Amino acid sequence: MTTIRDVAKHANVSAATVSRVLNKKGYVSKEAEEAVLTAIKELNFRPNAVARTLYNKSSRMIGLIVPDITNPFFPELARAVEDVALTYGYTVVLCNADGNVEKEHNYIEALKQKYVDGIILTTNQLSFSDEEEVGVPMVALDRIIGSKIPTVVSSNEEGGAAAARHLIENGCRFLAHLRGPKGLATAEDRLSGFRKVVEQSGVANVIVEADFHFEKSEQVTAKLLEHHPTIDGIFASSDVSAAGAIKAATAMGKKVPDDLQVIGFDGIPFGEMLVPSLTTIAQPIYKMGAMAARLLIKLIENKPLERFYYELPTELIKRQTTRRKEENNE
Amino acid sequence: MTTIRDVAKHANVSAATVSRVLNKKGYVSKEAEEAVLTAIKELNFRPNAVARTLYNKSSRMIGLIVPDITNPFFPELARAVEDVALTYGYTVVLCNADGNVEKEHNYIEALKQKYVDGIILTTNQLSFSDEEEVGVPMVALDRIIGSKIPTVVSSNEEGGAAAARHLIENGCRFLAHLRGPKGLATAEDRLSGFRKVVEQSGVANVIVEADFHFEKSEQVTAKLLEHHPTIDGIFASSDVSAAGAIKAATAMGKKVPDDLQVIGFDGIPFGEMLVPSLTTIAQPIYKMGAMAARLLIKLIENKPLERFYYELPTELIKRQTTRRKEENNE
Repeated sequence: MTTIRDVAKHANVSAATVSRVLNKKGYVSKEAEEAVLTAIKELNFRPNAVARTLYNKSSRMIGLIVPDITNPFFPELARAVEDVALTYGYTVVLCNADGNVEKEHNYIEALKQKYVDGIILTTNQLSFSDEEEVGVPMVALDRIIGSKIPTVVSSNEEGGAAAARHLIENGCRFLAHLRGPKGLATAEDRLSGFRKVVEQSGVANVIVEADFHFEKSEQVTAKLLEHHPTIDGIFASSDVSAAGAIKAATAMGKKVPDDLQVIGFDGIPFGEMLVPSLTTIAQPIYKMGAMAARLLIKLIENKPLERFYYELPTELIKRQTTRRKEENNE
Repeated sequence: MTTIRDVAKHANVSAATVSRVLNKKGYVSKEAEEAVLTAIKELNFRPNAVARTLYNKSSRMIGLIVPDITNPFFPELARAVEDVALTYGYTVVLCNADGNVEKEHNYIEALKQKYVDGIILTTNQLSFSDEEEVGVPMVALDRIIGSKIPTVVSSNEEGGAAAARHLIENGCRFLAHLRGPKGLATAEDRLSGFRKVVEQSGVANVIVEADFHFEKSEQVTAKLLEHHPTIDGIFASSDVSAAGAIKAATAMGKKVPDDLQVIGFDGIPFGEMLVPSLTTIAQPIYKMGAMAARLLIKLIENKPLERFYYELPTELIKRQTTRRKEENNE
């Protein structure tokens, strides 16, 4: 393998000069720089990434900590982070922390030990108050961690309001909301948007916990429809939760959307594959991941950020699980 | 930050001795070792992972190259790899290569530069003939790369045969197979299993390409059912492809499973969320990922492998898109 010493010999300069050229640090004469670059090319020299890491305390890696990559919201997010990272020459270390504080801390320690340049964290925990405490640049994705940590979320509250409005405009008179986990900001915000609209319009409503979970949503919907057979609209806090609701309703002989209209939240590809296809409040998942990666790389490169809080708009996607008042309504 | 020198001073030994203890290499007296371990504990010293990487040429990282993490087959695989890696103290670098040979090579080079200890590769390409050529321990997952590279796949051919048998036993008389990409071993094997059974039983059949792709499967199924309205059974080469077929059939007024029975392949969670829920040939996805990770770590640690080829059994999961001959049939 070619070393810095081989390059120095070939270029007729010192190893320290080669190092200065490689790391773009310190003074090097124009001629020496050219000689080094020519030698690098002729010898097909690739500076050892690990040695550079030790020297620069930068590994050109970023850590991505998600609760669970098998939750269908996260693959697209991870893909976006990796795509942007790749463009800037970074690789991505994937960590599944299951929303477990101890696991998150262990991952952060392990990642710092490997000199990752930064971390993107999707967490429900409020264990980090600012960047200083973490000791490495960090961006929060889909969750708010602290005011000094740049955050990318979607407009969950407005999305929850839009879901309720859509059901009411479509004629629903008794709404159920399958809410996400208690204490989770995204779930609370969706609920809050929903609640404001139903209270304003005065339609009957009932709220139950379903944890974004398919089986749980199926179970709570079955009970709900048994107790309240006149429920005619369900807003589920995730697309997977909506699928559970539809499954339960269909099993009880209810027709979607004729007897019961259902709207989800997320906009994952799977919603389109359902029959009938799922009306949903779509988050710009790929954009959120890409923006988090870009913000993190700015932080790493000590570039100024315009803001620390980015809320991207959600969008109502009308498909087949809600009615259309007029065919040319869309 | 505590350094090796601080530990050496505290333990009253040389830095070289501390290094030998940390790396478990070379002779160290019992007393010196104990003094070093005590000093490490008292000073709360954490050996720098990057410096160790440079010394040992091991980063305790493994690279996982997949075509695209947003393809719903791969998140569970990635999760399994990461779970096993974590148990053995390794972290996982995630790479999306889109089945592009150049991207794969670039990733492999970048990963080697970072001294990853090994790579798990899911690829359609036959560009690596053995481990020597890659220069780093490698395991092939879901695809066969070369005879000297340990490989984990599921029994695709037997799975294809089981799908065809199930449809025929359920009374189908005209089968269609939505095959996966040409040249992809997994897709070819599923086709081959299907073909053997239909030829033996003499039922009519037609084979079309659908690339595991939702929209493409929807389109080809619509055409297929238009030309051949008597098709009464479809074997789709992936669950996503099956969802496309069901969507097209439903749009044409066909009832699944009464008019048309459909069986998929993969066993991803999403199949269960469909209404009706999807009958499928399930691969043991998590097991495949976990086994690949365990094999790779054995390779890394120079432990002997029993075999180089592991084919895990697939399983017919009967749900609602195929008929049940008798209710107690399952």
